[in-house]
Amino acid sequence: MEIKFISLLWLIGIIAEAMTGALSAGKRQMDLFGVVIIGCATAIGGGTLRDMLLGHYPIIWIENPHYLLAIAFASLLTVVIAPVMRYLSKLFLTIDALGLAVFSIVGAQKTLMLGFGPVVAIVMGLVTGVFGGVIRDILCNQVPLVFKKELYAVVALSTASLYVTMKFFGVPEWINLAASLSFGFGFRMVALHYRWSIPQFNYQQEDQHSH
Amino acid sequence: MEIKFISLLWLIGIIAEAMTGALSAGKRQMDLFGVVIIGCATAIGGGTLRDMLLGHYPIIWIENPHYLLAIAFASLLTVVIAPVMRYLSKLFLTIDALGLAVFSIVGAQKTLMLGFGPVVAIVMGLVTGVFGGVIRDILCNQVPLVFKKELYAVVALSTASLYVTMKFFGVPEWINLAASLSFGFGFRMVALHYRWSIPQFNYQQEDQHSH
Amino acid sequence: MEIKFISLLWLIGIIAEAMTGALSAGKRQMDLFGVVIIGCATAIGGGTLRDMLLGHYPIIWIENPHYLLAIAFASLLTVVIAPVMRYLSKLFLTIDALGLAVFSIVGAQKTLMLGFGPVVAIVMGLVTGVFGGVIRDILCNQVPLVFKKELYAVVALSTASLYVTMKFFGVPEWINLAASLSFGFGFRMVALHYRWSIPQFNYQQEDQHSH
Repeated sequence: MEIKFISLLWLIGIIAEAMTGALSAGKRQMDLFGVVIIGCATAIGGGTLRDMLLGHYPIIWIENPHYLLAIAFASLLTVVIAPVMRYLSKLFLTIDALGLAVFSIVGAQKTLMLGFGPVVAIVMGLVTGVFGGVIRDILCNQVPLVFKKELYAVVALSTASLYVTMKFFGVPEWINLAASLSFGFGFRMVALHYRWSIPQFNYQQEDQHSH
Repeated sequence: MEIKFISLLWLIGIIAEAMTGALSAGKRQMDLFGVVIIGCATAIGGGTLRDMLLGHYPIIWIENPHYLLAIAFASLLTVVIAPVMRYLSKLFLTIDALGLAVFSIVGAQKTLMLGFGPVVAIVMGLVTGVFGGVIRDILCNQVPLVFKKELYAVVALSTASLYVTMKFFGVPEWINLAASLSFGFGFRMVALHYRWSIPQFNYQQEDQHSH
Repeated sequence: MEIKFISLLWLIGIIAEAMTGALSAGKRQMDLFGVVIIGCATAIGGGTLRDMLLGHYPIIWIENPHYLLAIAFASLLTVVIAPVMRYLSKLFLTIDALGLAVFSIVGAQKTLMLGFGPVVAIVMGLVTGVFGGVIRDILCNQVPLVFKKELYAVVALSTASLYVTMKFFGVPEWINLAASLSFGFGFRMVALHYRWSIPQFNYQQEDQHSH
């Protein structure tokens, strides 16, 4: 049952990510193909990178191309309903926060299931939660937002850590999922509300040989 | 026989892609090493990404490094004959159109041979046809052209779809290859001539929290 | 014994690369998360890409996540000692030169051990030596430095070639390692001192259809 619930949340998460990706493409005036690719990269780029790093094949959307079609559809739908989207930005931030928590937990969970240790699971929770957005920003030719602003990666990291830790201590799966999810979602919403961020590193110097 | 013919076209395609990649590097004033890397990435980046997504190893240029040497040579040759290249741009657009059709078909064909289904095959035809250029543009630090302009991805997608559909209906391979190739090449040339494109999505908004 | 020595140099190399990566992140005013990611990508991006291209799993830092923790720590330490870093730039260039030679040799060595041929080994030496910096620059949204300036890739390529050639002629491993390492390190230091570079390719033209 908890598997189905988390799967449903994951599906909502990838759809929401696809739609935010489509908006990013729109900010760069991409054509509809670009919109679909950016939507797909945002929604499933993190999980894809995780599976490629772990050498775990087949990748989920290759095994179930229906996800890809759903994401493509959601991306195109975003273009149609774009005029309404600006009134929904709060809703999207909320769904995005939920997606972040779900992705981080699912990423860690899958990694543990494949037999990897806790540190790798936490790192892969982070990769799953955050790197869809990193790939989106690279494809849109900008410095990944998540490297510069807001408490996004920290939420992914701490949510994945909490899940892995509770798993380690034998907390029943459904309690663990509920607690990690609440924590990750709540943490992100509070961080957004208070505009929390972590310190920046500002290092300016005349450019030298610096590979 | 048809295998040999398509292999020859594929070889012509990767050489042409390497040369267009080398020109892109020249526009960014890269050094000769950059020229070779961008040439290689443009020529075989799409196929490499496809194989990495499918988990299909060894990747073709690792199994046959001769391809890599040929691509490196073609990239460097481009530097030498650059003064002539500007008079050959129509020729290159033609070879590039041929390459696009061949890559899309070969990408779909290989994916089917590995036992994947039709949707995955079409997506991989698209990846093979288009992502060499995407990787080239990322390495040159610009928004991938294919996300913004022209009927390039649509040609890849429809060519791969045609090939997979005819395969599904049992059309003999050589007829399928000839028809898909003619369709893809013709479609791209006509699209170029009439400057066809697909609609753009323009979404401007003050930047908010938007991961 | 020589294995331990090269492992020690490799460890010094990844720590030094992590620190130069952290400084790059600081030039882009990234936050501490960005600093750690750029540090990791610079230090182990090249080896990770090599393993993904070869289909060789598990990737080293997934098998030994301690490396990842050490790199993350070195990246954060860089932020703390940043005021001192500008007086250490010569030291860093020296360690970086050592790292370049070690990465190129280790990359070629591992590829040969996996049973691949000499051309692939040399290419993978290059990838291991150079692509950490390429990934760093892509994540920082700039044209990879190594495509534009300095004798960096040439050092990686020639060092890997020398190692593979001596291996082919049956030179004992420890002599080979010592000679390749001295050559690569010396070549890089001399190239830095005399500001050697390879020719650039400058190709300017009004933008046309150029995929």
